[in-house]
Amino acid sequence: MDGATIGQKYQPDSRAPDLGENATIRSGTVIYDDVVGGDGLTTGHNVVIRELTTLGDNVLVGTNTVIDGRTEVGSNVSLQTGVYVPTNTTIGDNVFVGPHAVLTNDPAPMRTAGALQGPTLEDHVSVGANATILPNITVGRGSFVGAGAVVTRDVPPERLAIGAPATHEPLPDQLQGENRIE
Amino acid sequence: MDGATIGQKYQPDSRAPDLGENATIRSGTVIYDDVVGGDGLTTGHNVVIRELTTLGDNVLVGTNTVIDGRTEVGSNVSLQTGVYVPTNTTIGDNVFVGPHAVLTNDPAPMRTAGALQGPTLEDHVSVGANATILPNITVGRGSFVGAGAVVTRDVPPERLAIGAPATHEPLPDQLQGENRIE
Amino acid sequence: MDGATIGQKYQPDSRAPDLGENATIRSGTVIYDDVVGGDGLTTGHNVVIRELTTLGDNVLVGTNTVIDGRTEVGSNVSLQTGVYVPTNTTIGDNVFVGPHAVLTNDPAPMRTAGALQGPTLEDHVSVGANATILPNITVGRGSFVGAGAVVTRDVPPERLAIGAPATHEPLPDQLQGENRIE
Repeated sequence: MDGATIGQKYQPDSRAPDLGENATIRSGTVIYDDVVGGDGLTTGHNVVIRELTTLGDNVLVGTNTVIDGRTEVGSNVSLQTGVYVPTNTTIGDNVFVGPHAVLTNDPAPMRTAGALQGPTLEDHVSVGANATILPNITVGRGSFVGAGAVVTRDVPPERLAIGAPATHEPLPDQLQGENRIE
Repeated sequence: MDGATIGQKYQPDSRAPDLGENATIRSGTVIYDDVVGGDGLTTGHNVVIRELTTLGDNVLVGTNTVIDGRTEVGSNVSLQTGVYVPTNTTIGDNVFVGPHAVLTNDPAPMRTAGALQGPTLEDHVSVGANATILPNITVGRGSFVGAGAVVTRDVPPERLAIGAPATHEPLPDQLQGENRIE
Repeated sequence: MDGATIGQKYQPDSRAPDLGENATIRSGTVIYDDVVGGDGLTTGHNVVIRELTTLGDNVLVGTNTVIDGRTEVGSNVSLQTGVYVPTNTTIGDNVFVGPHAVLTNDPAPMRTAGALQGPTLEDHVSVGANATILPNITVGRGSFVGAGAVVTRDVPPERLAIGAPATHEPLPDQLQGENRIE
């Protein structure tokens, strides 16, 4: 954990992170106060996890990934390199998010006042590389978002969302089943 | 400003940055010499702002965002997490650029010699998450670029640019008006 | 090379990187053991190059770019800012990869067991900004991938791949020729 900051204060009475057992935190990572992690948290380099984020067991947060706080992440989750997770996002168990995927929480930045609400990724969801998921979208259990897709509508369970804007198709055979993240 | 580098030299006679009043610079940030910032500059972590960039007042530069130098940024501007701004870009006042948006300045990299010219984002423009804007494109005053859009032609004022390549539509009611970035 | 880590151990008997002559390594960069670089390696800030990567001469690796290891990169290559290169990728000579382009190596993350195989970019390929290239894709010699394209099929030599999913067209006149990366 050389060269990492575990416990960045953001207000006077914030509390040190509680990271569980067997964490591996790589250099350049900054974890804010009031983050609660389960056992087996692993980060790449230069990760930022902001305040009031809760992580389950066995979570991987890849190099340069940013979790902007006030977010719930389940267990057995892999966020690959350079993922962006905004505030008020919900990520279930056994979820995979590919490199450079972007989740968003603001439907009309700077124009219309309104709550910031990130997406919900239900259990066993996989999101492909460089996909974009719009605010307040739910991706249903076991669904798969293709690389580069732009997801603008809720995705029902067990669907493949591809294209920009994404259309939703039945899962092909080779993508059936549950995620196994070890 | 612990763990930040303010005043990275790039040539022997370069001059220390002039950052105005009330700057908040987070760890890992590198600001090169010959950057001029207005009052209230705020950066996230691991920001890079290269030489000969000028920033107005009340500018937010999010975590991992890179401004590659020789660029003008106005006042009341928010560049969210992981934005890329190339050299020779012009950003007006009250502009919002969403997470992972990419501005470019080279229309034919390595093939055709020519000046590198980044986009111009006029006042009150909003750019959605993970959008891509091609070189030398002007996005007109008050226009809105959708998440994941690839903007290949100039966008007139007060339009919504969506899709890849982007088409330009009238602004829907909920996106009318000016940006308010506080 | 102030503030960089050259020689991150990843196993007990790993060996220090061999970086050739005239390397310029900027702050925040982490280069793992068992990386072999040619002469003239230049990195931006916060670059990560993982183990068992081999780089030719005159390679530029831009700020925030991650090369995840076990990858071959040729000579006279420019990887711009925020590029992602997964394990088991092959990049030829005189290749340009634009800002935030994402290469991938896993066709069915977490669903189907199988080898991770990244793309092959043959000599004189250019990849535009924020493009996404799917696993095991070959982009043929001299081809050009447009900004924001999602490349889902092999691209023959001397083609322009644009759109999402990308279609392949003849190269327009202004993109004919070879890359010159100095």
